[in-house]
Amino acid sequence: MSTKERIILGVDPGTAVTGYGIIKVVRNKPQILVLGTIELYKLGDHYVKLHRIFERISRLLKEYCPNELAIESPFYGKNVQSMLKLGRAQGVAMAAALAYGIPIYEYAPRKVKMSITGKGAASKEQVAAMLSQIAGLTESPKKFDATDALAVAICHFYQTNKPLAEGKTFNSWKDFINQNPKRIK
Amino acid sequence: MSTKERIILGVDPGTAVTGYGIIKVVRNKPQILVLGTIELYKLGDHYVKLHRIFERISRLLKEYCPNELAIESPFYGKNVQSMLKLGRAQGVAMAAALAYGIPIYEYAPRKVKMSITGKGAASKEQVAAMLSQIAGLTESPKKFDATDALAVAICHFYQTNKPLAEGKTFNSWKDFINQNPKRIK
Repeated sequence: MSTKERIILGVDPGTAVTGYGIIKVVRNKPQILVLGTIELYKLGDHYVKLHRIFERISRLLKEYCPNELAIESPFYGKNVQSMLKLGRAQGVAMAAALAYGIPIYEYAPRKVKMSITGKGAASKEQVAAMLSQIAGLTESPKKFDATDALAVAICHFYQTNKPLAEGKTFNSWKDFINQNPKRIK
Repeated sequence: MSTKERIILGVDPGTAVTGYGIIKVVRNKPQILVLGTIELYKLGDHYVKLHRIFERISRLLKEYCPNELAIESPFYGKNVQSMLKLGRAQGVAMAAALAYGIPIYEYAPRKVKMSITGKGAASKEQVAAMLSQIAGLTESPKKFDATDALAVAICHFYQTNKPLAEGKTFNSWKDFINQNPKRIK
């Protein structure tokens, strides 16, 4: 394996469904290695859900050896309870990556849509349609949690592979706060 | 080691300071094994902080072999950003416990204070004073993050060791929601 080979794991964490997508960059183009969902809504207990996310992400890290994690994360939400639960789901996915020693990059949903389709308010169908062109996605567009995860992996590839003409990337929470002081209450 | 020996790890997660306290139940009384803080405010990067929490909690699990994790967790907060960050800190601590295979129990701060002092609105000084009586705490009361973690471990010991005369325990998020439908927005 070349030391320059880039494999990116994209994750869209959630406590009902967590999506994942792994891309490999071949001749500067993204190729899909795997795409899937971790279905959690049937698991009653909150901790069983968190354990499942941690286990499955850890297994993907061991099996596909990605060298970067890209995660979809809103910077604001409807209410504090749902954000605490989302934070926990993100936290266990991040813990798996941190234990594995790979860096984490996060992107807001609007940024991902903008990166893939050119429109920050694009529908999930539009994102899936564009992904099929970019990376030969043939999966059913019903699996939106998986395509969202694939989208954040490809968004990260674009953001780190070409000069940034417009827009900003937030590689950390600190960056986001520094660049958006008015959005922090 | 007796199979009935109870060792409880209490954690008060936060992204500035995460406190921990481990108790061993000897002849039905809690004894302090270790008490400390993971100081994170000097670490700039958000992911470095999360990694530090995961590593340190993992090390405590290996060294002291607790069989239960008790965590202090508010069920509501000031704003969604702080709750997302708190959720991530909780998530990485929980991931360490889940990977280690021990069950997690969580208690609201008010519940912890009530359990230790009999008053839900007790000050940190009052909690520390009571802990010195219960478990021979001799640490400086300035280390409140550590005493809060010790308090949640002892709260869990009380909640699981005697019949519940009054009040309720929430062993999971689901329990809390079921018992407090009006507090969920």
